Amino acid sequence: MPKKVDHRERRETIARALWRVVEQRGLAHATMREVAQEANISLGQLQHYFSSRTAMLTFAMEFASEQTSQRVGEGLRDLGHLPHPRDVLRLMLIEMLPLHPDARATSRMSAAYVLEALHDQGLHARAREGLLQGRAMLEALVRQAIADGHIDPDRDATVETDLLLALTGFTTLLELNVIEPRDALAAIDHHLDRLFARRAYHSATRARRGSGYPASPWNL
Amino acid sequence: MPKKVDHRERRETIARALWRVVEQRGLAHATMREVAQEANISLGQLQHYFSSRTAMLTFAMEFASEQTSQRVGEGLRDLGHLPHPRDVLRLMLIEMLPLHPDARATSRMSAAYVLEALHDQGLHARAREGLLQGRAMLEALVRQAIADGHIDPDRDATVETDLLLALTGFTTLLELNVIEPRDALAAIDHHLDRLFARRAYHSATRARRGSGYPASPWNL
Repeated sequence: MPKKVDHRERRETIARALWRVVEQRGLAHATMREVAQEANISLGQLQHYFSSRTAMLTFAMEFASEQTSQRVGEGLRDLGHLPHPRDVLRLMLIEMLPLHPDARATSRMSAAYVLEALHDQGLHARAREGLLQGRAMLEALVRQAIADGHIDPDRDATVETDLLLALTGFTTLLELNVIEPRDALAAIDHHLDRLFARRAYHSATRARRGSGYPASPWNL
Repeated sequence: MPKKVDHRERRETIARALWRVVEQRGLAHATMREVAQEANISLGQLQHYFSSRTAMLTFAMEFASEQTSQRVGEGLRDLGHLPHPRDVLRLMLIEMLPLHPDARATSRMSAAYVLEALHDQGLHARAREGLLQGRAMLEALVRQAIADGHIDPDRDATVETDLLLALTGFTTLLELNVIEPRDALAAIDHHLDRLFARRAYHSATRARRGSGYPASPWNL
């Protein structure tokens, strides 16, 4: 069905144009008219693909989430068979932060969407749903890591999941150059080191005063 | 100088009107015209107090920061003479999160300002400066707590400060009702308990499986 594929592709092209508008000019400029202009199509053509600004924003946001998931998926493949849960969590956290251009585009799209969602019930419900799904995935990973003995059984899975998710607060610090990417990564690694430090070798790790964890295979 | 006081008061009244517009309708609606309407004054009167939208936004943001600092200051007075650094950090973190109406208004104003700052160099510099000052204050507290023996000397003050600041990531989770206020507070308390757990009594605290810290005097 080439026509259906083309329809989807056109919507993705428009979504990327919307991301650029949001990234460079801000959400206030993400009108049907300005996005059509950025995508190099007429307003009429845009309206053929999206019946309203809300529909366009929502698709652009869902497409941003999909792209983030895809980047995580690619990172997971690089980690090989049965990756360590610490690596998986690190990958997920890092791909949610604006540390490279693709992630920055999706991160800014998310931030704009959340702000818009605060005074739009429809968007609020969708944004909430997306975050709840992400949170559930993260919590399942934490619970499995506890069950498999990678994380101390004394740890509370709910609390640890919430703390991991809260670390997306690095977004603002990075966007405003309050901290450097390497600072965010160092802090995330410290947090993960402590989360994965079992009681038995906790003091040994400390004694070495290093992270005790092999360096990341990525250039991050 | 009653005239000067009146001038400042009028600017604060306008700033609060702007906060309401941002909170209820979003930043895109925070134009000179809509803010004047919300403040019940004419556009001409508004222009007497602010020469541009940027000047108005910047004042509203700085006023939001001042109000947050003032709330922290009031909380500190309630903590009495020589408060424990854990209480001080907890107070600062909590007042940055949208956990009550005043904090929600200033938190939304900040989020909107940051998003606008991403494509406005002037706002970017100011927003960065404000966050750097906040970060420096937090780091000084962490360093003092390490020097005074409240936090283990093995802890890296830079990393711990960045992790504390990143916990403002709870803002989005709270705003979208992904987690409840009590979940954010429980996670913050866990994080602070671990930060202030000295090596000597670390295992003892764990053995009790409780936070080992007295309940908060506030209803939070």
